[in-house]
Amino acid sequence: MTTMEQMRQAKAASPALKSAATEQKNAALCAMAQALCARAADILTANAQDMDAAKGHISPVMLDRLALTEARIAAMADGVRQVAALPDPVGQVLSREVRPNGLVIEKTAVPLGVIAIIYESRPNVTSDAAALCIKSGNACILRCGKEAWRSAHAITEAMQEGLAQAGLPPLLVQLVEDTTRHSATELMQGVGYIDLLIPRGGAGLIRACTENAKVPCIQTGTGICHIYIDRAADEAMALSIVENAKASRPSVCNAAEVCLVHRDIAESFLPKLRHALTDARIAAGKVPVSFRADERAYPLLGGVPAGPDDFDTEFLDYILAVKVVDSPDEAIAHIAAHSTGHSEAIVTADEATAAKFVRSVDSAAVYVNASTRFTDGGEFGLGCEMGISTQKLHARGPMGLRELTSYQYIVRGNGQIR
Amino acid sequence: MTTMEQMRQAKAASPALKSAATEQKNAALCAMAQALCARAADILTANAQDMDAAKGHISPVMLDRLALTEARIAAMADGVRQVAALPDPVGQVLSREVRPNGLVIEKTAVPLGVIAIIYESRPNVTSDAAALCIKSGNACILRCGKEAWRSAHAITEAMQEGLAQAGLPPLLVQLVEDTTRHSATELMQGVGYIDLLIPRGGAGLIRACTENAKVPCIQTGTGICHIYIDRAADEAMALSIVENAKASRPSVCNAAEVCLVHRDIAESFLPKLRHALTDARIAAGKVPVSFRADERAYPLLGGVPAGPDDFDTEFLDYILAVKVVDSPDEAIAHIAAHSTGHSEAIVTADEATAAKFVRSVDSAAVYVNASTRFTDGGEFGLGCEMGISTQKLHARGPMGLRELTSYQYIVRGNGQIR
Repeated sequence: MTTMEQMRQAKAASPALKSAATEQKNAALCAMAQALCARAADILTANAQDMDAAKGHISPVMLDRLALTEARIAAMADGVRQVAALPDPVGQVLSREVRPNGLVIEKTAVPLGVIAIIYESRPNVTSDAAALCIKSGNACILRCGKEAWRSAHAITEAMQEGLAQAGLPPLLVQLVEDTTRHSATELMQGVGYIDLLIPRGGAGLIRACTENAKVPCIQTGTGICHIYIDRAADEAMALSIVENAKASRPSVCNAAEVCLVHRDIAESFLPKLRHALTDARIAAGKVPVSFRADERAYPLLGGVPAGPDDFDTEFLDYILAVKVVDSPDEAIAHIAAHSTGHSEAIVTADEATAAKFVRSVDSAAVYVNASTRFTDGGEFGLGCEMGISTQKLHARGPMGLRELTSYQYIVRGNGQIR
Repeated sequence: MTTMEQMRQAKAASPALKSAATEQKNAALCAMAQALCARAADILTANAQDMDAAKGHISPVMLDRLALTEARIAAMADGVRQVAALPDPVGQVLSREVRPNGLVIEKTAVPLGVIAIIYESRPNVTSDAAALCIKSGNACILRCGKEAWRSAHAITEAMQEGLAQAGLPPLLVQLVEDTTRHSATELMQGVGYIDLLIPRGGAGLIRACTENAKVPCIQTGTGICHIYIDRAADEAMALSIVENAKASRPSVCNAAEVCLVHRDIAESFLPKLRHALTDARIAAGKVPVSFRADERAYPLLGGVPAGPDDFDTEFLDYILAVKVVDSPDEAIAHIAAHSTGHSEAIVTADEATAAKFVRSVDSAAVYVNASTRFTDGGEFGLGCEMGISTQKLHARGPMGLRELTSYQYIVRGNGQIR
């Protein structure tokens, strides 16, 4: 099918899901999980073909993301079952008002309709995204990178089998068949068919969507996250938070990339930071962090003098840019100029400074005395996550099921006219 | 100033408003209202120049929209004071959760940042939009049609005087100085400067924004609203609702354009509809409604046989398209194919049919036994309105102050790491 035909099919299938009962959607999700396990051999065969074709063409990190195993497929099925166990956001009455004229106005959560997701080489996104869309009442059109297509296709077949078993249209979940760039453009410009486009991937993909999308789009993911160590910081706490935010999982978007240090604490703190993130980690058998230090940090910290781009780079690696600032205001101004609006933290015992930081920093999540690594649907108690929105419209921060819904005003009267 | 410079200035001014106290914002709004009244003579002089320049170039309806009077300026000032009296949406804690690890996560309403509004020839939109933006903590950039520029400029000066009197940056409210098409394109593509673009105008403007906007945009306004008269309708109620929805103010977006009538009631209802909307209105000295009737309605209703476009036209006039349908399902399918997603109504005494209609129709507002004319910020109890969103992302239906905000997660800990 062409991408346009697939969009038409998705739109045609979506009303069946808008009015489906929670029990039917959950039955479909359980059947989808079961089909994933039952079809594990087929999925692994398809994945082996993807891996063979990709070897030598993509990096080892990308290859690892692409690889599936029995255990990974079982984890995907578990993920789908967990979504079934979450509360249904659809039909929830968000507010109810009885007007003086007797009209009863209920603001009620409803599905968006059709959600398109453009992603890269992780095959598990296929089942994760499909499960979240089905639970929130949305048809979905999935477009993965071509290196993952065979795997994603086999996973999609399992999803469709589960839908059919529960009496729902299989085409509620579709994988885009055209793996050329053209299909991504068609999704971005599918006005009238796509109610929401979610790009999940690197900065290039996000930029392409911003440039080309004519359908509503939510930017996700890019995170240049900052930690500001105030002069009133508990230094031991600051060391633990910086190490966790930088080095517990450097490849994710909520990892910190930049540490700003107040000048009054720099002389004491920076040598300890160097020790904790280099020597102490080497002694513990962990990967050490290397530094990009501005001219005031460099004499105290070592590392490499920071270049002009180092404070605008999402390293996604064991690299931390460090800058000494004169005041909380300078930290706030630096963040305003360089942040991607994802997550920032302050470490301080001074409540007034913390309050000012929180009031002034305009990012999806602002932390006081905690690691930026908590910006995550699971950690926030949403039970799941479709991505982290770094824009301000509709959804900000971790997107759970509720963020995949819209609302309608249902107004009941007995003949009222205006 | 160039539009790019104006966007930069707005972005630079906006943090001052993000953290401004409610009292300061209200003081600014009251000073803005006062300045509007104090500068009434200047505003009327500017408006007279606009009117002179426009005469002969725009329609009488447009000229009437453009015209200001002392009374209209006083009404604008009142509108600004009413916004001051509304609750401040900023800083409201939307949800609060204490996680098992002790983190306290507060989802808190915050301003969007900078809102751009592109509108046409109503000068009063200048003060209405500015007041809503200031109250919701947002800087705003206003771009009016060139025929209203002098009036809007004089009004903007009053807004800026009020801001300055309250100690806020005057450039929080700016009128785009470049009146060529180029400035609209710059706003649509002002990535990094404009957090939300709201086009308020006709279908052409909305389409231009959908096509060209690279910044988040909310579509407003176009309304092809339907009323379905079920076979179980109270006919007197149906007549009253159809007349109100069509003829109480045909030029607005919540007016009905299409009436769908169940075949079982058509023979009884349509002659009554003809009488009520034509002869009875003429006898009462009101403008009669003319009909565009499909082939089954025509013999019972008269009027003009409906052409192929009549069910896809926002008449904004005393014209009603009428079609006979075989079932509620056919009505629902017709609405799905032809609606702009604004407002639809069913008139029926059958609760099961009403429930099905509500469940199946995917528009911003769905009415049971009431007129579509109630889709309005004031009627919904929002106290104000920036427009009616017909899209599903972020805001749907009437947009009040809350719909002009985003949210942030503020997370407080005592050293938590992940």
